[in-house]
Amino acid sequence: MAIHIFCNILVLLSLIAIFSIPLTTSKPGRLSVHGGQTTRNYVAGSSVASGQHEYETHYYKQTLDHFNYQPQSYETFGQRYVVSFKHWKGANASAPILAYLGAEESIDPYIDGIGFLTDNAAQFGALIVYIEHRFYGMSIPFVTMEEALKNETLRGYFNSAQAIADYAEILLHIKRKFSAQNSPIIVVGGSYGGMLAAWFRLKYPHIVLGALASSAPILYFDNISPPEGYYLVATKAFREASESCYKTIKRSWSKIDKVAAAENGLSILAKKFKSCKPLKHARHLKDYLVRLYSAAAQYDTPQEYPYDGGINRICKVIDTAPKGADTLDKIFSGVIGYYGNLSCYTIDGQDSLTGWDWQTCSDLVITMGVDGNETMFPAEPLDMKEYIGDCKRMYGVSPRPHWITTYFGGHNIKVVLRRFGSNIIFSNGLSDPYSSGGVLEDISDSIRAVHTAKGSHCMDLFPAIEYDPEWLVLQKKKEVEIVSGWLLKYYQDLRQDSS
Amino acid sequence: MAIHIFCNILVLLSLIAIFSIPLTTSKPGRLSVHGGQTTRNYVAGSSVASGQHEYETHYYKQTLDHFNYQPQSYETFGQRYVVSFKHWKGANASAPILAYLGAEESIDPYIDGIGFLTDNAAQFGALIVYIEHRFYGMSIPFVTMEEALKNETLRGYFNSAQAIADYAEILLHIKRKFSAQNSPIIVVGGSYGGMLAAWFRLKYPHIVLGALASSAPILYFDNISPPEGYYLVATKAFREASESCYKTIKRSWSKIDKVAAAENGLSILAKKFKSCKPLKHARHLKDYLVRLYSAAAQYDTPQEYPYDGGINRICKVIDTAPKGADTLDKIFSGVIGYYGNLSCYTIDGQDSLTGWDWQTCSDLVITMGVDGNETMFPAEPLDMKEYIGDCKRMYGVSPRPHWITTYFGGHNIKVVLRRFGSNIIFSNGLSDPYSSGGVLEDISDSIRAVHTAKGSHCMDLFPAIEYDPEWLVLQKKKEVEIVSGWLLKYYQDLRQDSS
Repeated sequence: MAIHIFCNILVLLSLIAIFSIPLTTSKPGRLSVHGGQTTRNYVAGSSVASGQHEYETHYYKQTLDHFNYQPQSYETFGQRYVVSFKHWKGANASAPILAYLGAEESIDPYIDGIGFLTDNAAQFGALIVYIEHRFYGMSIPFVTMEEALKNETLRGYFNSAQAIADYAEILLHIKRKFSAQNSPIIVVGGSYGGMLAAWFRLKYPHIVLGALASSAPILYFDNISPPEGYYLVATKAFREASESCYKTIKRSWSKIDKVAAAENGLSILAKKFKSCKPLKHARHLKDYLVRLYSAAAQYDTPQEYPYDGGINRICKVIDTAPKGADTLDKIFSGVIGYYGNLSCYTIDGQDSLTGWDWQTCSDLVITMGVDGNETMFPAEPLDMKEYIGDCKRMYGVSPRPHWITTYFGGHNIKVVLRRFGSNIIFSNGLSDPYSSGGVLEDISDSIRAVHTAKGSHCMDLFPAIEYDPEWLVLQKKKEVEIVSGWLLKYYQDLRQDSS
Repeated sequence: MAIHIFCNILVLLSLIAIFSIPLTTSKPGRLSVHGGQTTRNYVAGSSVASGQHEYETHYYKQTLDHFNYQPQSYETFGQRYVVSFKHWKGANASAPILAYLGAEESIDPYIDGIGFLTDNAAQFGALIVYIEHRFYGMSIPFVTMEEALKNETLRGYFNSAQAIADYAEILLHIKRKFSAQNSPIIVVGGSYGGMLAAWFRLKYPHIVLGALASSAPILYFDNISPPEGYYLVATKAFREASESCYKTIKRSWSKIDKVAAAENGLSILAKKFKSCKPLKHARHLKDYLVRLYSAAAQYDTPQEYPYDGGINRICKVIDTAPKGADTLDKIFSGVIGYYGNLSCYTIDGQDSLTGWDWQTCSDLVITMGVDGNETMFPAEPLDMKEYIGDCKRMYGVSPRPHWITTYFGGHNIKVVLRRFGSNIIFSNGLSDPYSSGGVLEDISDSIRAVHTAKGSHCMDLFPAIEYDPEWLVLQKKKEVEIVSGWLLKYYQDLRQDSS
């Protein structure tokens, strides 16, 4: 089960915020992940102007393995980070550093695209930093991603503990390089990057003052959260949008199976769904649809925006299909509603493995399953034996399902974390299916849960736009207030220590 | 510079506490470490009876590399841990676990020999655990220590981050195995093991409630503490014991050089000092003596004990040498005073590398040097270039001098640590030269510095004996009180959480 999770934020054009709705969720039990298909809605009036910040790109000579002293561990690769000094009040003022921690993607789309950084740097007088995760974008050691993933030695270095050690080294390097020893650092991340931000504060609190962990399902490990949560939330959102749409989707799976079982069934399905390639298994179509509905739910936009969110784009056409349309016609019209009218759809399988596929087969063993009765999705209960077996077939090694909780904790988090943790914001939108694995209650005065009923995946990280609903504005304001409180206390301490 | 640091505690016989004074300190600039020579003082009346605790030995199937997913990382080795249930009030009572974290030695001499465990288990109703450090004792992966140290791949796995990850896995395993999920764990360690205990609480606070870090010089990295501290403290102790002894030692180095420079000088020195093997360099003799005086200072015993500590054993004979004895005669009489009259002394070089040699050339880069003016020792300022060069010649890889502070922090510890750390006792005896790299001031209400003016290295970990001076009894009592406070709060929280 590879659940691809990132906050996809693309900012490509001046004065335009782009809402990107990527296919980032794979069905449980699948190790293959489709990616890259996006629908973009261009909305005028973004407060973020490209070029407002002047970005410098640097490459840090990063150690391949921080926790091992074999000769190969000493090899180094260039890890990209990007900085903007535009608003920084400087080292002498001990002005803060806002650092975005990259997740399972190139950082390119995020540069100038993380609202918490771009919208707030001026008022914080902050240095802005974006750091790319090892093995993504321009930070892949030595070879191409495809080669790296096929290399059983090289991919061994590709995991979250190494990634946050990278961040530790780069942030200390930045502090030294810009003589910013007294500048407090706030790290920001979304989705997997939000996990990294929270974990970074837990593991390197001497380097970072606090973390904003947006839509970080840190409890989706080791069965801490009920595995079925994600698809229950997604189903609820569809059902609330349209009962009939929900019903159409729910009954579609058996229809697909029925057609597939007939003679030439797969060809019929491929034709009906305009698959770019012949369909090899009915399951591929079902996975494709599960990912579609998941992404629609994950990145759904609230009604305040002047365009339809993903669920409405799907359900409106499903519900208004012409007379005579059968269930599968309706389902396909939903695909068109979501992606637009394309010459074909890349339904069948992915061409190559992704970094995320590997990550879910090493340390990031996300324990998720589908309850077929309570959801509109085809049943697929969590089956760890199958999960492990799939990984082993694919990579020759087993994932380590208990490592994340061993290293970072998570069990009984409310009781345990309040005894030692501090300065983390866990932000969530409850309409995001991933919120079911998030921290939704305050753990202490300084470990805060900030959530909205209608927010979607990583929504609070997007740059502000004029259509932002009041509740989103308030959520962001609260986050800024909490971080300001941490900074205030930091500067009070600093003055006291130096007096 | 390999500074071998451990709390050497041997408890071999029923009702007898043995004070072992090992040669565990090497002169800065040296990578070779002599070891093993000990003088034992048998003192009747120990409160620790061997057999009082019934020990079970287990081997945990430990992962070779916790932070890497190459096939070799998945190999497992047997890691030894030893438990005693004698006093444990059990899982149902959520009774605590007192765990000794092994350092750079076999745990054999420590089993039943850590007073904080053996003396307090009954009153805490605690489970006692001793865990052996990877690559020592019975926990060396696959091969002998000698082979492991020569194997550039295998020794790569031999470092402190992997070691505390081992402890995390084993402690969680013990909790599962004995259904002790609610039993709070207190970890205890001395010297390097004390660093591990403190670091373990910092890195795995979700696993361990608190740490007693005895004589842990966690500030001897990255030049946080002045490099000269160790030998200044050692010199002060000698000088306070006897000004004339101090002077004799201080002038002896040039005498050694003078004799060595003459014809047959090394043979003359070897004969004078009854070296078991021919002396190859005058420096080996000087290193031997530096280690001797260091150990004498490190493990000096206070005057309350009914026998002389190391410094007195050396200085008494130096100061009462017969008429006509020259400086080197006096120095050699000091060697006899310390070790007793042996047929020969193993002055020249060590036979093989030790695990500690490797550790100081990978992550444990202890920044120590000798000020020749202010101490009685031959000058040897810290020279990182030479340190790194020596390691590189020896192992082909460079040490990583900034890694410990990157991973665990340490700079500006008083300000930084109080912002996030909790539940650590840093205990020290100020007559221990290593106290110069220790935490000697309270950092917060829950990060406490407990020290005594006259205590020596790891003294508070020894089992109680009848001669213990009042100040040592009080130090131990204070440690127990602090730990009791943590436990009290833990149980209050636990009741509140479950109510």
